[in-house]
This record gives sequence, C-alpha cells and structure tokens, in this order.
Amino acid sequence: MKKFNKQASTLLLAAGMGLAATAWSADNLQDVLKARGLSQQDLLAAAKTYVPTGKRDEFVTFSSGGQSGQVIVYGVPSMRILKYIGVFTPEPWQGYGFDENSKNVLKQGRIDGKDITWGDTHHPAVSETNGEYDGQFLFINDKANPRLAVIDLRDFETKQIVVNPIYKSEHGGAFVTTNTEYVIEAAQYPAPLENKKFFPLEEMNEKYRGGVTYWKFDRKEGRIVAKDSFSVELPPYWQDLSDAGKGPSDGWSFTNSFCSERYVGGIEKGRPPYEAGCSAKDTDYLHVINWKKAAEVVKAGKAKQMNGHNLITIETAIKEGLLYLIPEPKSPHGVDVTPDGKFIVVAGKLDTHVSVYSFEKIQAAIKAGKFESKDSYGIPVLGLKDALHTQVSLGLGPLHTQYDSKPCVAYTSLYVDSRVAKWNYCEGKVLDKLSVHYNIGHPMTMEGDSTKPAGKYLVALNKLSIDRFVPVGPLQPQSHQLIDISGDKMQLLYDMPLPLGEPHYAVSIAANKLKPAVRYKVGTDSRTDKPHPGAVRAGEEKTVKKGNKVEVFATLIRSHITPETIEVDVGDEVTIHLTNLERAQDETHGFTVSTYNTHASIEPGKTVSVKFKADKEGVYPYYCTEFCSALHLEMMGYLLVKPKGWKPTKTTLAKGNYTEADYKATVKKVADTQAIIDSVVAYITSVNYKDFPDVVAMVEDAFDQLGKTKGLKEKHEGFAAKKDWENANLWAEQIWQYQVKTADLGLRAKTYLEQNGAKKVK
Amino acid sequence: MKKFNKQASTLLLAAGMGLAATAWSADNLQDVLKARGLSQQDLLAAAKTYVPTGKRDEFVTFSSGGQSGQVIVYGVPSMRILKYIGVFTPEPWQGYGFDENSKNVLKQGRIDGKDITWGDTHHPAVSETNGEYDGQFLFINDKANPRLAVIDLRDFETKQIVVNPIYKSEHGGAFVTTNTEYVIEAAQYPAPLENKKFFPLEEMNEKYRGGVTYWKFDRKEGRIVAKDSFSVELPPYWQDLSDAGKGPSDGWSFTNSFCSERYVGGIEKGRPPYEAGCSAKDTDYLHVINWKKAAEVVKAGKAKQMNGHNLITIETAIKEGLLYLIPEPKSPHGVDVTPDGKFIVVAGKLDTHVSVYSFEKIQAAIKAGKFESKDSYGIPVLGLKDALHTQVSLGLGPLHTQYDSKPCVAYTSLYVDSRVAKWNYCEGKVLDKLSVHYNIGHPMTMEGDSTKPAGKYLVALNKLSIDRFVPVGPLQPQSHQLIDISGDKMQLLYDMPLPLGEPHYAVSIAANKLKPAVRYKVGTDSRTDKPHPGAVRAGEEKTVKKGNKVEVFATLIRSHITPETIEVDVGDEVTIHLTNLERAQDETHGFTVSTYNTHASIEPGKTVSVKFKADKEGVYPYYCTEFCSALHLEMMGYLLVKPKGWKPTKTTLAKGNYTEADYKATVKKVADTQAIIDSVVAYITSVNYKDFPDVVAMVEDAFDQLGKTKGLKEKHEGFAAKKDWENANLWAEQIWQYQVKTADLGLRAKTYLEQNGAKKVK
Repeated sequence: MKKFNKQASTLLLAAGMGLAATAWSADNLQDVLKARGLSQQDLLAAAKTYVPTGKRDEFVTFSSGGQSGQVIVYGVPSMRILKYIGVFTPEPWQGYGFDENSKNVLKQGRIDGKDITWGDTHHPAVSETNGEYDGQFLFINDKANPRLAVIDLRDFETKQIVVNPIYKSEHGGAFVTTNTEYVIEAAQYPAPLENKKFFPLEEMNEKYRGGVTYWKFDRKEGRIVAKDSFSVELPPYWQDLSDAGKGPSDGWSFTNSFCSERYVGGIEKGRPPYEAGCSAKDTDYLHVINWKKAAEVVKAGKAKQMNGHNLITIETAIKEGLLYLIPEPKSPHGVDVTPDGKFIVVAGKLDTHVSVYSFEKIQAAIKAGKFESKDSYGIPVLGLKDALHTQVSLGLGPLHTQYDSKPCVAYTSLYVDSRVAKWNYCEGKVLDKLSVHYNIGHPMTMEGDSTKPAGKYLVALNKLSIDRFVPVGPLQPQSHQLIDISGDKMQLLYDMPLPLGEPHYAVSIAANKLKPAVRYKVGTDSRTDKPHPGAVRAGEEKTVKKGNKVEVFATLIRSHITPETIEVDVGDEVTIHLTNLERAQDETHGFTVSTYNTHASIEPGKTVSVKFKADKEGVYPYYCTEFCSALHLEMMGYLLVKPKGWKPTKTTLAKGNYTEADYKATVKKVADTQAIIDSVVAYITSVNYKDFPDVVAMVEDAFDQLGKTKGLKEKHEGFAAKKDWENANLWAEQIWQYQVKTADLGLRAKTYLEQNGAKKVK
Repeated sequence: MKKFNKQASTLLLAAGMGLAATAWSADNLQDVLKARGLSQQDLLAAAKTYVPTGKRDEFVTFSSGGQSGQVIVYGVPSMRILKYIGVFTPEPWQGYGFDENSKNVLKQGRIDGKDITWGDTHHPAVSETNGEYDGQFLFINDKANPRLAVIDLRDFETKQIVVNPIYKSEHGGAFVTTNTEYVIEAAQYPAPLENKKFFPLEEMNEKYRGGVTYWKFDRKEGRIVAKDSFSVELPPYWQDLSDAGKGPSDGWSFTNSFCSERYVGGIEKGRPPYEAGCSAKDTDYLHVINWKKAAEVVKAGKAKQMNGHNLITIETAIKEGLLYLIPEPKSPHGVDVTPDGKFIVVAGKLDTHVSVYSFEKIQAAIKAGKFESKDSYGIPVLGLKDALHTQVSLGLGPLHTQYDSKPCVAYTSLYVDSRVAKWNYCEGKVLDKLSVHYNIGHPMTMEGDSTKPAGKYLVALNKLSIDRFVPVGPLQPQSHQLIDISGDKMQLLYDMPLPLGEPHYAVSIAANKLKPAVRYKVGTDSRTDKPHPGAVRAGEEKTVKKGNKVEVFATLIRSHITPETIEVDVGDEVTIHLTNLERAQDETHGFTVSTYNTHASIEPGKTVSVKFKADKEGVYPYYCTEFCSALHLEMMGYLLVKPKGWKPTKTTLAKGNYTEADYKATVKKVADTQAIIDSVVAYITSVNYKDFPDVVAMVEDAFDQLGKTKGLKEKHEGFAAKKDWENANLWAEQIWQYQVKTADLGLRAKTYLEQNGAKKVK
C-alpha cells in the first residue's frame, strides 16, 4: 500500500510542476490520489475506464442475468449497467408480465399448461450476418425450464419465448449459425424425450437421451419458426456447450459433453456422488454434426415426430452420415470455433490442457472413413490424434476460450487457478497469465464469438467476489473484471459487482452497431410490432361498456391521463388501453391502479392494455408512475367501483371559490412565464442550435408543448366574459402548465448549448 | 473537445517528465487521455471515483427501486450497484417468492385477500439511534399499494411487509423518528378510509380523507408491531412528504401537502385536468403534529377503530391540541428538518422559493394560541409570517432539500431548472448552482437526513437520461449524478445509469457502519431469524412419506446434493428442505427442479424449503444453480415421478466397467494432487498468512474440504481388496474431488498473499 502511494506521488509531483493551483489543478489530483490511496497503475486504469458525462461507452455487453431470468446490458469500458431486460421473469418497471401484451409473450413460455415465472439464463448470442455480429436480435436460453427467448434490439424488448419440446433441461444455448439461419440449443441432463414419460434410472442407457435442437429463425419476422425447427437425438451423455462452424466449417456444429460415463449417483444409497462418477474416465465426446445435411434430411421427411417436433434419431443420423464423435479430455465446458473457422478449441475442466482440433483433419478422416471405433449407440468415433492440431497445457480448470483481433491469439479461463491464460492456438504456446478474483467461469472478449473479434478488452466472469466489495450480507454479488488485452501483457482495469443474478455468459458488440429506436409509431403493440387495436388519438378517448365488460381507450401526455375518471360497477371486467401521445425521447409514462396489481410502462408512441376484475367496491386512484414532469403527481384519476344498483344523492362537485382577482393573477403569471420562454428562445436561436440534434429534438418537444395551449386563451377569456372565475382561472392555469413544460425543455436545451460550446450565429 | 484534450496534454506532458517509459508510464497515461478524449477535469473526476480491486467504497446508498418494487444498493463514490434486494416483487435469484419461507413474507403484503406482486417503492429510510444512522434496519414504502417493508441489514433480507389498513395510496414514507420509535407513512390521493367503501367524487370534502400513519417499531424483534401503531386522520389535502423532528423538535413530525384545493378533475367532461386545478392556489398546508402526544392519546383509549386500526380523528386531534396547519407556498414536495432540529425547510415546486420555518416560532405561536384562522375542518392555522425564519429564491421547481456537514449549508433540487442549488439556510443566501442532466427529483447527501450529515458527496436523482448513455431502446435508464460537495463549488464527478426501475429517493450511510454477516447459524430460517424445523446435519438427510405428502430433508455442499434421487408418486405434494452445510463466505448454493417453477438461494448455514405438487409423471433433474465449484454441473439429482402403481422391471444400475488399472491411475492422481496441495500449504505457512483474515478463512475452508476425505481412503482400499474396481475407483475419485476444491482455495489464498505483500516468516 505504502509503495503504491509513493509511486503515485512521484507521478503527480511531476504532474503538478507545470500547472497553476486551481480548484482542478494537478496539486488537487495529487491530493486526491494520496487521500484515496491510489497508485499510478490505479490512475491509469481509471483513465482507461472512466466515461465522462455526455460521452458514451465503446462496447455494449449483453450478459445473462443468471437466476434472475433476465438479460443485463452494460457498457464497456465503464462497466455501468444500462438495463435489465425482462425475459423469463415478470418485471414490473417494464410492465413485463403486468400488462396484457407482454403477458402474451410470457404465456408462450408456459410448460405443461402452467406458468413458469423465472428462468436460469445462461448463454446470450447476438444475431450474425456473415459471421459478424449485426446487432439486430439477441437470443438467450433458460437452463432450468428448457426455453429460448428472442429479444429485438430495435427496442430491447422480449418478443418471443419457445419451449423446447423434448428436453427437461439444457445448458448450451443460444449459439447462432453464420447467418442466423438456426439458433442452437443442446440438452444437459439426460431424460426420456417423450413428454411426461417415466423410466427408472436403471434404464438410463436405453431410455434416457440427450440432443441438439436447431431452431429456425425468420429474420424478417424476427421470430423463431417452430415447425421448421428440428433436433438431432444424442446418447445420454450430458451435452454442454456448442458452437457453429464458420467459413470453411460453416454448415457444421460442435457440441461437447461430460459424464459420458452415463453414471448414476446415489449418496443416499452409499453410492459415490455424481461428481465422482461423472469424472472418472479420461475422455468424453465431442459431437460433430453436419446441420446443413440434417436440415435436408428433415426436409426429405426422414425425421420422426416426437411431441410434435422434428427429431432425427441417432439411427437416422448415423445412416445419413451427419453425426460423428471425437474423444475430448476430460469433462470439457467450452467448445469454441476459431474466427477463421479452421480450428475448434475444447477446454477440459479436469485436464490442464486445451485441445485444438483441426476441421480439415476431421473432414479428411470422415471422408476417408477412418474411425477408431463406434460408441455404444453405433456412432462412428474419430481418433483423437487424427483430429487434433495441437494440445497446450494452460493450468488448472480450463473452461472456455475467447479470441482476440490478433491472429492466433486466444484467452482461456482457468477456474481452479483463478487465472486467465493468453495463448497462441496456431503455434500452441502460452503467452501470458493474469490472476483474477476469484474463480472465473467464462471469459469474454469484444465480439469474441464472431469471425472478426474486436480485441481491446476481455471480461472475466468471476463466480466469487468474497473480499472485493463492501459486504451486503451472506448473498454476495457476482463479479466481472475488465481486462485490457491491447498490449502484450494483460492488465486488470476494473472490478464490477453484478447486483442481481449470477451471469453465466455474455456477449459484447460495438456500440455503434446498435441502432435502437427512441419512440414507436403511435399506437404500436410493441410485443407484436403491429398496430394495437386499443390505440386512440388525442380527443378520441372513450369508455365503452358492454354488459359487465368495460373497455377504456385512454391517452397519456404530460401531465394528465384522459379520462380522469373511470366509473364501473363492482364485478365488471375492466380493460384499459393506454396510448402515450408523447413524441419526445425518454418521455415514458407508467400506469397503475391502486391495489389492483397491474402496471404498465408506456414509452412514446406505445399502446398497451391492462386488465383486471373490479371485484371490490370503493375508490381507487390511478396514476402515472414515472416522474414525467414537475406536475407528475397530479397526473392521476379515480377508478370508482360502485355497489350494484347505487344511485347518487349529491350530483354536483364543490365549487373552487375563485375570484376575478385570482383569474387576473393567473393571467399575469402566464404573461410573465411567456417572457421567460421568449428570452430562452431568443438565446437558443441566437446560437447554432441546429447543429445539435439533441437540442433540435428538445426544441421540437418544447413547441409541441406550447402548441397544446392553442384555443385555451379563447376558452378562459370566454369563461371570464361569463364571470365563471373558476373555469376562467383553471383554463388559464392550464396554459401555465404547458408553459412550465416548455420552459423546462428550453432551459435544458440552453444548458446543453452552453456546456457543449454553441456558437453565436447572425 | 479539442480544448479539453490540450489541457490534458499539458498535465500529462508534465507528468511524463519524471518517469521512465514502462508499460504503465505517464507517457502511456497521456496516450490514453488523448485516445479517449478525456480532459484534465475528467481525469480528476476519474481519480475521485475509481475504486481499484481489493479496495472498497466509502459509503453505501440504499435507493428505492421505483416500479421494480425492489431496493437498490450501490457504493459511493464508485457508483457500482452491489445488490438488488427483493422487497415487494418476487425475485428468483434470491429465491424471493419462490421458496416457502420468503413466500411467507410476501403473503403478509396481500391486500383484500389477493397477492400483490409488485410495488412502486419510493422513500427508503435507515434506522436511527439518537438521530444518527445506525445501519441496523432499512424501511421502504410502496406508493401504489400502500405498504411498508422492513429489511434487516444484518443479511440484507426483507423480513416483514405491513399493509396500511386505511389508505388507497401513499407517497411520503418511510421516515423514522429520532430513535426509530415510529416509522412515518402519509397518505397521498384522498379516498374513503373505510375499506371497500364507495363514495362519489362529489362527496370528496365530506367523505374522502388523508392521514399520517405512525408504525411502531420493535427494534429488538426487528419487526413493526401493528397493534401498537396508529394514524392521525387528515383532511383530503394530498399529503406528500414528511420528516420527523430532531433535537429540540423531537416528538413532532411535519407533513406537507398539495392540492389543498381539493380539486376534482375531469378532462372527459370538459373540466380542466387535475394538473390545473390542483395548482391554482398560492399556498397549501404544512401539517404539524405532536406524535408523542398522539401516542399518549392512543394509549389513553381515545382513538377510534378503523378497519381494526387505531385512528385519531381530526376532531380528537384538534381537541387534544396535537394537530396544526401552516400555509406553505405552492405545491411543495420536500419538507426537511435541519440537522440541529431548529428549522423546517419546505420547497414549493411551483414557487421559486424555499421557505425556512422556525420550530421555536411555531411553538411560541402554538403556546400563545396565535392562529390566523381555522381550515374547513376546524384545524388551527398558524400565520405564515409567525412561523417563518426566512424565504430564499432559488430557481424554478425547487423540490427537496438535503444537508451538508458544514453548518447551515443545504442543497435543494430545482426540477424545471435542472440544477442543484447550494445555499445557506441560516442567513438565507444562495452559495452556488450546478447544472445536472436532466431534471432532478430528489438530491441526496451522505447521511443527509441525520443529525450528523457526512458531507463530501451529493447524488442528483435525475429523472431523464436522454443523451447521456448508449441508447438501449425507447425505455431509457434513469440517471444518478455524483457531485463533489467538499469544496466551495460543486463539481460533477460521475454519471450513473440506473438499469431497473425509477428510483425515487435514496439514503447513504458510511460503509463502516454496516456489519452484515457472511453466514447464518446452521439451520436458520432467514425470514423469521429462528431455527428452521426442516434443517438437518450432514449424514442425517432423509425422505419421509406420509400419505401423499413427501418431505425431503436435504443438504448441499460442494459439489453434491444429498439425496441424489427423490422418488415420488404422481400427485404427491413434495416439500424439500435444503440446508447449506458450507461455512465459507460466498459459497451459496441454488436449487431448482426442472419445470416445477421453484427456486431457492441457500447461503452458508441457511435452511429453506421449496414445495410443489408432483402433478406430472416423468423424470425431472434438479441441480445447484450457482457455479459453486469446478464440478458444479455435476451437483444434481433426479426427481422421479412414478405413475400410480408402477412396478420396476429392471432393478440394477449399469456397471461402469472399471479395471484395476483405472483404480491405480486414480490413486496416483490423488497422490500427485496432494503433492501440489502440500507445496501450496508450504508457501502459505512460510509467510505471515495469519495477518490476513480473508486468507485465514480460505485456509480454514480448504482444510474443511480436505477433512471431508476422512474415511474415504479406507473405503476405496476396502473395495479394492474385494476387487470391486468400480467402487474402489469412484471413492478414490471422490477424494480427488475434495482435493480439487482444496487446491482451488489454496491457490486463491496464495494469489491473495502474493498480491498483498505477504512477508516471509521463520
């Protein structure tokens, strides 16, 4: 510690020499480093990761949210979490699973007719075009309840969930083929494939099976097409991760396995546990599958139907020559095709080696019919030496491999060693090692699964944080460490806690490849991407009652909900369609009805429905749950649930008791505020504001707001003429409400221009 | 931009002069700043916020999770999120709402007999002792479904939820009294207090009411005591935030209001909206309540029972002299008692002023019976000028005020201006203003609600992020900006995106005041803090079947679950009690059964139960969902759901086909691995490892693991003597499994010692 401080002082003493002692001087910087105990290395790491206000991260990481059932989105190098996307678990902020439209997505994920309200997310994958990440779609799997979800990166919303029809668990998914023709999902723990079919463990070898599923993806529709998808049946080896071929190996996929011992544990019966029996043999099997041929086999009608799904049996797969095995050392986790598609790297977690297989050698052996044996199910097994390019000893517990932008450079995580190894897979030599804290699962480089890895950074997805962060109880955060891989030596830059879920794997994409929208076309159901039948335009809001069904077509805009009263009879089924009329970026409104357990998030342009049974009499406020303007607390209304047959006794609202003086004061306030607005407008138009797109958007929004005052002057003057001071005053006040929003936007724009060096124009 | 780079270059040119050009040299730093476009100011801000690996944040912030229904925990100054705590919304990572024990907490939050599966969390409060944060408990409210939750900061878990018995919505809670005698929660939108009672809006003045609830807190039990809690009925003004008195004002509380116009909107009927009608008058009312006297009134039996809850009516409150009103300008949000308890600051969001009330003057007026009027409900109203210390014009949209460690210094957020104002409340003058991005709601200083604010940092809880972060779709993150308040001028340090929910308010406490545990006493139900009846010790695991109820008493330890098979008949109700036998920090295990929609997080020592109906035949894997060791994928078992009346035809498991050679190879592997362990132990004991508590814990854990091999040598040798090579080999393999865990810990400890400057000892 003392040593670090001394180094830092040396640096900063030097730094201080050339500068005056202002509030932000180097003297000050030196004091900060001293006071905070930061070393010279720390300062450099800070400089490499800090993203100042108004600037943006270079890469975006999509991380599995582990047992949270969600996807985590964070920026690199700042490691700031930008969003949790609701995927398998209902999430109220996004209204996910709380509004009717998103409930329809979650319903697709029901299993055996029942809701599954969480997921154990594992492997995210970004859609690819020619093997490069294209930033259009994201896929993520659920290990616990074998499912796969599709997220559209235009709005970062989950659009589809598909249930694997034949597995009881899976782990290795999602992995995409070179042009996202298919999304690959492999089984994990073997079980009978036929749904709800029981066979005892004694019949493991005969009746339990694994497999790999190829989900057909329709990029235009942005949806998986279940009927065009298929699976290849595999022996009851425990399939783990997969990867799709690239370039020369495109058309093939690779899935490894562990517990090819097909061991059955039983501590309670005095048998050694699974952990012993599943790790007893020196090798397991890499499954090598020609998926292009498999797709043809399905097309030719040679697939069997299993639970209504296309299944290529082991027998057919052998007969059609599309399935091969290769021994792989021992209990491997990752199988990773190199960016050039020529090699396949397998890390055996109980072996110190990584094995580099040559696709060319594999093809040659297959072509030559050179097999060392068949497994118990008749699948041809290639000789390890016939397929191997090289093996490299890296250390204890190699798990998974990622690639650099530099040719032949790979990074492999070493779980037991708590290290990352940098090595050369062409020449088979170790280049560098770095300790991490602690026990790394997957490593992940920028665009590292693509044909063109971007290099620069590696993230170590560590499984334990232990002493790294302020303690927050027995359940500790996970930890991701950011590592600089731009030089010869790896350098640790940043420790990031993960606050929710244990992320299993992640993918990073260049931020500039993502082009999400900031608003929807007005009236869009974001979960179907189609016009929402409940959408209405401003002024067309209505409440329709048919029998005991009440349908409300409502709108939201700063700062009122129309209608402001919804009257129903107890027992009515109430559906409220909500359209956000805003055009401005980030002007989201929320909606809830007190104690009726519903919530919606309505972004600009979106229409969404909430539905509930008004099963209790009484008065229930509804309100906008987003702090959308200074008057957001006033953005509310009342749901009135009337007793059956209720008749009013009092039919007029209390008067507000306003005088002409009140009205005149309000009119003066409106004039004063307009003067402020005019002065802000004068400033904005005096500079080159049109060069700043964000300011142009704010100015547009400001004039949108001011435009809403149209007709209100006539209205309050009309009431004033009739000496209706309450209505006169309130409608004048409503002008002021719009003015406040206009002023708010104008001041925001002014600050932006001042801080971003706007220049005077003539 | 160019200008910033030039400044940075100047600094770094100077810095480079005194240093050699190593990989971490200043030259390199200069290159980094240039390449990343960072200014000198940016570098300083980075140095002020960066927390390097192995070091910790100075403060911990508890932020409301907004509509996510959770609490967010993050570190200051790094702004890294450490944890999302499940509170009102089920959260599977924590097993919250997915295991039976936490379901019991969520059940307490049911309203009118129905589950509420989310919350709109608003105001967290840390428990206080003598007005200072003590770090023992955290309270947070739900605006949408008026409820309050208690979180124990020993384990950061939600222990209790109470439902407000008389409100239909609330906003202003939680606020604690000086010694956490009571937790204060005020109503928001008026409604009839009697549950499920309907009155039309025309009877707003007569039948709708607001109120303030004082929840009695039993610190020893760590629970709210509903029967000793009470409310004070208030007029149908829209109550908002509250604060409890301190020092001289201890025993009193202050609650402001807006829409004291008691306006009823109705756009759909041509009436001006709520936003206009609720903001029409120049002043609203500050409610001043003597809660100590109110508690005595309740004790004396003078409270009315309303829905089974103690309610002091307006009439009684007036009669007992415990309720007063003071005018406050206009639609205020925050009411904040100064650290010395002498003043109460109110920010009127539609006025440019903050109003500073003097508690002394208020008391003098009350004592003198000097009232300016009574409101419509007969409550005495003090004159504004009789209560006011001073008023200060700060800018547009003042919302809420926080305090500095420096005497008389306060910070107020200006929503419309998008600024923070620093000002002096004793002398009534403005000191500084800083622009934020964009539209700040609450500001929050370190321990800023206590009698001893810690100064240093302020967080601006901004409502819009707009252009600050990489775009992630129409629904954007919220933004918290960290501001350095240690100098005369405020300085912006850091932009933090909030990825889930719109945090409304937050509290920060010195990290060293938190002393959470890293493990539970073995067999604890963490939700009741009592021994769990389902807990068992190692070796006592069992499955008990009574009728169609199956109860499993299971344990988890790296890397197996005991039992590894659970056999039930279809239709059985299955309860699995899970005890985590680990003692090591961060060795959490998870548990799920495939497709049965259950999940548990079991931290060291915890016992938790999951329950489901085995309503479908078949084979369902269960597994540990945490990556707890290199063999975590093998930490699994099978739930076998047998058809009614099923009888086995095959009763023996397949043999593993192991030879003497396999056994000998395993025995050799065990010996080789022991040699590695011995060498690591030799290193560790050669240095002063006992000076590092984290290493001592790792070494203890390592010997724990190695200790589990006891008796296994005799076991495998016994099987070998009988030439049972399968069992001999597997039990030897099981020794190796423990060795791998031991080696893992040893290597982790070794790295720690090397990186933290351990010294040789004799």
